[in-house]
Amino acid sequence: MYNSESIKILDTLKKDLINLKGGTIFKIGDVSVNVTGRDGLGGLIEEWFGVWAKKNKFKIKNPKDLGKSQEFPDYYIGGDNFLLEIKSFDTDRSPNFDLANFESYCDSLAKTPSRIESDYLIFGYKLDGDKLSITNIWLKKIWEISCPSDRYPLKTQVKRDVIYNIRPATWYSENPRYKTFKNKDEFVDALFKTQQLYKGKNNKDLYLLNITA
Amino acid sequence: MYNSESIKILDTLKKDLINLKGGTIFKIGDVSVNVTGRDGLGGLIEEWFGVWAKKNKFKIKNPKDLGKSQEFPDYYIGGDNFLLEIKSFDTDRSPNFDLANFESYCDSLAKTPSRIESDYLIFGYKLDGDKLSITNIWLKKIWEISCPSDRYPLKTQVKRDVIYNIRPATWYSENPRYKTFKNKDEFVDALFKTQQLYKGKNNKDLYLLNITA
Repeated sequence: MYNSESIKILDTLKKDLINLKGGTIFKIGDVSVNVTGRDGLGGLIEEWFGVWAKKNKFKIKNPKDLGKSQEFPDYYIGGDNFLLEIKSFDTDRSPNFDLANFESYCDSLAKTPSRIESDYLIFGYKLDGDKLSITNIWLKKIWEISCPSDRYPLKTQVKRDVIYNIRPATWYSENPRYKTFKNKDEFVDALFKTQQLYKGKNNKDLYLLNITA
Repeated sequence: MYNSESIKILDTLKKDLINLKGGTIFKIGDVSVNVTGRDGLGGLIEEWFGVWAKKNKFKIKNPKDLGKSQEFPDYYIGGDNFLLEIKSFDTDRSPNFDLANFESYCDSLAKTPSRIESDYLIFGYKLDGDKLSITNIWLKKIWEISCPSDRYPLKTQVKRDVIYNIRPATWYSENPRYKTFKNKDEFVDALFKTQQLYKGKNNKDLYLLNITA
């Protein structure tokens, strides 16, 4: 189910987990700061991962280096340009990253149904002052890290009645309030049911047309 | 008008402007990255500034170190805990930082009118690959860096009819579409007129009550 290159990447990272410690040094002029803030840490881990993967001889490409404006994915991996997304969160808190922009995802899934097969490589970290440790790493499909919610069939970030992003489940929890979806179809169904409730129409027909085309 | 400590800080920084170059190094395990992304750069500059100011013996306090949950300000300066906000933007683009959350600002100005006297220290930077240079620094009051807009008397960030943040003017432009406000009163008037248009009511009376109290 997961791309074989993703699985190799996960194995290599997990074997080295004990050594995955570090941090951020920010310098201007003669003043250096060991950074304690966590703003932008997700972007740093994503950029670090690309360098790490190349150094470890994995087949990886950054869409930005191919001159593509980048909505998705974070990286292409393997010989067949498989889609890989990099996410991260502080394991002392609940996962709060954006899986994807809700409306963009509905549109792109209808037009490019293969996006649903993207691998998600997720870094769990702790930040103790300025000391960063990677504490866990997961390889997941989107339906394994998403779930329903009180308000919509798919858990999303909603502010003042506007849906912004698809938000993750606490997939590793033993007794979560909402369990993750059992399979791809359950996720797609929840996605388009949410779009139907939200917009009064959805992209399901277009999606079905494109997966059977 | 500006706090005397702010003026000294501005002078010291501007005299050293040619040397204000640096960047971000992010390391996990044995892989270091010279960071090229700009996510979180505003937070890094803000954190760096606090360390720089202490090293240069300016009177500065971080509200976080005083155990305050931090809505504003970024720093207290001088002997009388004057409010100092730190902002930054890429000078190859237009300023796009948030001056403040719109609704929080309306509420806090009504309750704590002295907030309007806050100094804003603004860092203009360029990021060339992983090489960061501070190219300009300004010291401003909020009415000197805000302006009207097509939609509202005060320029704000509006998404799907929801106002999120107060957004800056291009205050240094010679021929801007909208000029900055002439004085504090023009800004306050635009702020509460915008709130009136947006919510059908405003905090102007509460503000006036508190500035005359």
